[in-house]
Amino acid sequence: MTQRTLISQLQDRADGPVTVQGWVDTVRDQKKVQFVVLHDETGGLQLVNPRSEGREHISDVISTLAQGTMLTIHGDLKHDERVKLGGLEVKVGEIVVESEALPETPIAEDTSIDKRLDWRFLDLRTARNNLLFRAQTTFAHALRTYWVERDYVEIFTPKLMGSPSETRAELFEVEYFDRKAYLAQSPQFYKQMAQSAGFGKVFEIGPVFRADPSFTSRHATEFTGVDAEISWIDSHEDVMTMQEELLVAGLQAVADKHGDEIREHFGVEVTVPALPFPRIPLLEARAIVGARGHTIERGDLDLDPEGERQIAAHVKEQFGHEFVFLTDYPASIRPFYHMRHDEDASLTKSYDLIWNGVEITTGAQREHRVDVIEAQAREKGMDTEELGYYLDFFRYGTPPHGGFGMGLARVMMLMLGLTTLREVTFLFRGPNRLTP
Amino acid sequence: MTQRTLISQLQDRADGPVTVQGWVDTVRDQKKVQFVVLHDETGGLQLVNPRSEGREHISDVISTLAQGTMLTIHGDLKHDERVKLGGLEVKVGEIVVESEALPETPIAEDTSIDKRLDWRFLDLRTARNNLLFRAQTTFAHALRTYWVERDYVEIFTPKLMGSPSETRAELFEVEYFDRKAYLAQSPQFYKQMAQSAGFGKVFEIGPVFRADPSFTSRHATEFTGVDAEISWIDSHEDVMTMQEELLVAGLQAVADKHGDEIREHFGVEVTVPALPFPRIPLLEARAIVGARGHTIERGDLDLDPEGERQIAAHVKEQFGHEFVFLTDYPASIRPFYHMRHDEDASLTKSYDLIWNGVEITTGAQREHRVDVIEAQAREKGMDTEELGYYLDFFRYGTPPHGGFGMGLARVMMLMLGLTTLREVTFLFRGPNRLTP
Repeated sequence: MTQRTLISQLQDRADGPVTVQGWVDTVRDQKKVQFVVLHDETGGLQLVNPRSEGREHISDVISTLAQGTMLTIHGDLKHDERVKLGGLEVKVGEIVVESEALPETPIAEDTSIDKRLDWRFLDLRTARNNLLFRAQTTFAHALRTYWVERDYVEIFTPKLMGSPSETRAELFEVEYFDRKAYLAQSPQFYKQMAQSAGFGKVFEIGPVFRADPSFTSRHATEFTGVDAEISWIDSHEDVMTMQEELLVAGLQAVADKHGDEIREHFGVEVTVPALPFPRIPLLEARAIVGARGHTIERGDLDLDPEGERQIAAHVKEQFGHEFVFLTDYPASIRPFYHMRHDEDASLTKSYDLIWNGVEITTGAQREHRVDVIEAQAREKGMDTEELGYYLDFFRYGTPPHGGFGMGLARVMMLMLGLTTLREVTFLFRGPNRLTP
Repeated sequence: MTQRTLISQLQDRADGPVTVQGWVDTVRDQKKVQFVVLHDETGGLQLVNPRSEGREHISDVISTLAQGTMLTIHGDLKHDERVKLGGLEVKVGEIVVESEALPETPIAEDTSIDKRLDWRFLDLRTARNNLLFRAQTTFAHALRTYWVERDYVEIFTPKLMGSPSETRAELFEVEYFDRKAYLAQSPQFYKQMAQSAGFGKVFEIGPVFRADPSFTSRHATEFTGVDAEISWIDSHEDVMTMQEELLVAGLQAVADKHGDEIREHFGVEVTVPALPFPRIPLLEARAIVGARGHTIERGDLDLDPEGERQIAAHVKEQFGHEFVFLTDYPASIRPFYHMRHDEDASLTKSYDLIWNGVEITTGAQREHRVDVIEAQAREKGMDTEELGYYLDFFRYGTPPHGGFGMGLARVMMLMLGLTTLREVTFLFRGPNRLTP
């Protein structure tokens, strides 16, 4: 590999010969001198070329450079605090055009999000978007490290299923040789299978699919799910304890590594939340929201989006906390496999996690007693025949267990103070978007 | 959470009161004493219950225990070197049945692999299978850690595509609202897009889908792909250098953490290979295989499976090495996007990696000059219109780049000396297998 110096490493390098590689951002082609701003994956750098005699071969190349053109530059590094961009510049000694760009870039800063997504690879070249995915890398690795250090087993569950997982709604069908398969809407059943298999504690970060026709900024037909499931719990409280520790580990890692850059590019502070997160039973939360003057516009017992914002505002005021676990959801609005309280079967041992007013997680203790699962499924009007092998998981011994699922892009969106999943997903997928 | 002690932690614990949780493996119900072997995710433990007066409530429960029943045991730990299983036992003080198992287990040790896959969650309870997935967890985390420490960006590429990725062959079709989508056969195009996006170095471990109707032990319709792609390379040599370092990091981590257990359960040694791995141009490898007396039975210039085994045997004899990079594959048997040598356009800057006679990787420098890509695609008889946005990736500047793809299950299969992917996949997917 060429002895390349990353632009971020130039600060610590002494003046002298250096090789840098990246793409052209801007060219200022003046009478006596040319300036090029070169970008690589770590930052921007000013290149300078005096139009003096004997340097015409360089000047001629620079005059033709389009934005995006990929260059290898051998030159001389000079620290000079007058240079705004990082206090240094490289005087071009040799210029190699590695790959030319078309002269007209199809998007600009004020281009609509939809057109920017059409040209996502150009949109991703900005320092801001690059940072987003580096921060996500740090976050995801911190989560996995938290789990691996605690002897969790990573599972890669199948995305092709022979029968629907939880429901026939929002399900993608696949032509599978001479039959149908379905894309997994979550690894739920398989995370639970791993508990029957005696794996103890498992995690997965992988794609999930929802044939959801809605066009909101918070829905996608394919997204990255963050899932964990653990055995031998006493209640959903054990799951919440794990999840809050996990989020602290992830946010701490991002704050440590990217806090300054995120402040600069996104104008937000990555705050590491205090432990434990506040917990409020859902029905109590509804009362609090009502007392704040908001009428919840839903036919069931859940909160509406404004209700979620209101309870978040309450928690912020009362506890100075960005997160809140809403607990003990009514059985009527939870899936059949959520365990119910012994003392009040109308409530489940479950929770949602709200961050700055947006739901990022549903978690629960699962019902592991097969007769109770069957009864709860029937109560929901489900055909237990359809559940097939899922019920078998619980017929040969399964420890008490629970877990959660969390959308990675939602977390990144909230971490960076953004408002749409389209911007935080590498390549967004929605009802009308399958490209690039 | 209950103050539980894992079975593997008992060795270091003093005699006295302890709580263990797990499932029943065997019961020996004798006249004067009962023995239960209890398993958890970390190992096996002997429970003992003397049938003395006042303990009938415990004896009665133990007499009814079926294999797999999940128990919480509060008891007294005693180190006793006469006990074969770990030199310790727990005398039952209180027994809680958390989840009962049906009395008849549907599989046994000699059950066929196909039936064991039907009951995969029971099959996974063995210490051997549990170890397999713990070793895989360690391996995958070591790969990601190698990348993260070197500033790679993790990408989660979409699995739903609006058009076929590389070829229309072996492609799964999805009903996507009122149109068709396709399941990604690899993240190839998107890894390359990340290079155009200026990400520099990327990785992904995620599912890939192949509508491959074959029933061999080495094919699956869905498997976990390990992918990386890097910019600013000089040739495929840079990709090989990264991959061999990566594999050393992964194998070293597994050898350190699980070497002893793997020797015990799989009877194989996890060897950390020496760097660099041997490299042999493919055409030279063909000649070597021929000289060893094997006639390659293929119509093209590739090796056949026996040829792969022969070249591996040669490398083992000559270099004492389990791995070999076969390099510079003829353009005729490589995809259109592999870069060709300047000095001989019939050869590509590509490689396969063979481990113990089995191919685990294809890697290459990619062609990043759009006019050359188009020409090579046309030469392969492809319709460049169909490539659509893929070609756009290269119209706005793309650095020289390359990468590889590797099947995770294949690697685990070879690491543990196994012969079929069915055994090393959490839940295998083949033309006839979509359950559980």
